[in-house]
Amino acid sequence: MTDALRPGQTIGILGGGQLGRMLAVAASRLGLHCHVYDPAEGGPAAEVAARATTAAWDDEAALRAFAETVDVVTYEFENVPAASLDLIESIVPIRPNRRALAVSQDRLDEKDFLRDLGLATAPYATVDDAESLDAALARIGAPAILKTRRFGYDGKGQARIMAAGDAASALAAMNGAASILEGFVAFNHEVSVIGARGLDGAVACFDPGENRHEDGILRETTVPARLSASQRTDAVLLAAKILTELDYVGVLGVELFVTHQGLVVNEIAPRVHNSGHWTQDGCLIDQFEQHIRAVAGWPLGDGARHSDVVMENLIGDDVDRIPQIAATQAAIHLYGKAEARPGRKMGHVNRLTGPAR
Amino acid sequence: MTDALRPGQTIGILGGGQLGRMLAVAASRLGLHCHVYDPAEGGPAAEVAARATTAAWDDEAALRAFAETVDVVTYEFENVPAASLDLIESIVPIRPNRRALAVSQDRLDEKDFLRDLGLATAPYATVDDAESLDAALARIGAPAILKTRRFGYDGKGQARIMAAGDAASALAAMNGAASILEGFVAFNHEVSVIGARGLDGAVACFDPGENRHEDGILRETTVPARLSASQRTDAVLLAAKILTELDYVGVLGVELFVTHQGLVVNEIAPRVHNSGHWTQDGCLIDQFEQHIRAVAGWPLGDGARHSDVVMENLIGDDVDRIPQIAATQAAIHLYGKAEARPGRKMGHVNRLTGPAR
Repeated sequence: MTDALRPGQTIGILGGGQLGRMLAVAASRLGLHCHVYDPAEGGPAAEVAARATTAAWDDEAALRAFAETVDVVTYEFENVPAASLDLIESIVPIRPNRRALAVSQDRLDEKDFLRDLGLATAPYATVDDAESLDAALARIGAPAILKTRRFGYDGKGQARIMAAGDAASALAAMNGAASILEGFVAFNHEVSVIGARGLDGAVACFDPGENRHEDGILRETTVPARLSASQRTDAVLLAAKILTELDYVGVLGVELFVTHQGLVVNEIAPRVHNSGHWTQDGCLIDQFEQHIRAVAGWPLGDGARHSDVVMENLIGDDVDRIPQIAATQAAIHLYGKAEARPGRKMGHVNRLTGPAR
Repeated sequence: MTDALRPGQTIGILGGGQLGRMLAVAASRLGLHCHVYDPAEGGPAAEVAARATTAAWDDEAALRAFAETVDVVTYEFENVPAASLDLIESIVPIRPNRRALAVSQDRLDEKDFLRDLGLATAPYATVDDAESLDAALARIGAPAILKTRRFGYDGKGQARIMAAGDAASALAAMNGAASILEGFVAFNHEVSVIGARGLDGAVACFDPGENRHEDGILRETTVPARLSASQRTDAVLLAAKILTELDYVGVLGVELFVTHQGLVVNEIAPRVHNSGHWTQDGCLIDQFEQHIRAVAGWPLGDGARHSDVVMENLIGDDVDRIPQIAATQAAIHLYGKAEARPGRKMGHVNRLTGPAR
């Protein structure tokens, strides 16, 4: 544990949403303080963090003051402007590193990175205008999905193209943003691997979970996922390959399609991931603590799972069911958000389904 | 869940130590805010609570302001002055109730209460002066232990009497405080039951843990405890009897001696208890969430244990072993205390020893 943070030192977290909230709680268990930076006041993380700064992403004085109070910076939000990160990095290390962030911020760069690593992805092509979209559709075929290269999440910034006639409206939906056309992958189901790499290069993965989405938003993760033994090994090796290639420090989520031809990488997220929330109640050391351990230079947990779990997201007014859910044997994790808007992640629930199989 | 707090409402916690810290984290998971009241600034709980008041126990204005911001008050510290509680209770309910607190604040009242319930305790007698101590020793015999009736914890305010000749120095150690002489109980080992009772009167107990003390301070709790099936049942029934008789709402710790004549109650604590810290990693709903659920009027967890656990307290400079402990598969729970004084509880570690047997 050379270079490791000692209890009493401070981790800076960019972004003060529910992921930051759960990271801050995990850090507190290790005696580490957190300082959360977010442009919005009163977000989920501030309540459980030692300190919070409310300031814009381009507020240089605030960024500098924040960086000077912390011993390392991590993030729960990928879309922090590069100039802000440059300023922070001139003062204090950022983990995971900038390359991991850059790759995952841009769908085209991410696909190129994965392809160069020899990993399977959906067929894809860059789209800048009607002409390049036509060419892309001619090569990839329909159905396909047009996505902005940057700033998309939970199905936002996406348009389906079921037939060539949908191309114009899909392109209009991109609002002129640089985009990428992805072919549909005929998959049986989706799984994700939550992997972690320590400052010492050690890698540990949690068992893959099987994800069910609704309207582009994760609805449920079930662990263990339906995977053959060799698929399970492939999933872990693939995650380790990505982590090592990026010289990554922290937790990374890798979404995978399970197809008859093997595993196809859907996307990677350079942070703790919604599909890893089951680890809070299925593992001794969960993804949040794992991430904190990594960025603090501590040894990682081994990822061992003691129980099988089903994680259900509470979205929008799902949260009105809390009285009923509380009457069952379920671990409730609410994010402290006052207002339940449609599509807003309000919390999640973990249910144990037995000892780990 | 009539009368239940809704997410977004606030629980007041009297006392801002490590128990308050872990209660505040548990409350945050349920979307409940916490407001911590403690005379000392910067204690363990404030960091993870939505709000903290630093003021003396007799600061009426601060107590009133505190009570007016919360929807229910609970405590992690038994020795809050009665006048402070009177003031708070004139504004907002206190759970567990005042009687539970009064009984456990006074060792004589506690013993009388347990005896009246038909439960076995160590032989005891009240001691006010040399004469009553002589009479008590003549009846109970040596070895025995002289304890102040109030304000004792972790072996403080206690003096052993190995033979009649120790009586004078033991009495002097009480500094004139009203005291109680307790006979030694020939026990095989000590266990504790962490029980809970909800606002609706439902009772749920965690499996008993086996405790090992050193120098009067809990060192280790192992779950499951060595108990026969009938002892296990007795332990739970006895805890339920205490909870129901006190019309208790919240978590209560009951320390028991295991003897050849059956279970003997050592003491009760009207709060979450150090010997219940194993539940954080052995149960889906731990003692801290259980207490919050009870005082918030939510349904209780069933107390089910998924894993066997050994909990080790980190006392004083034990905390210097954190780098070594972090390299093993252990859940670390530090309390964020800056200074490691001898005898000070700095944190604890839970190790899983297998699926629940």
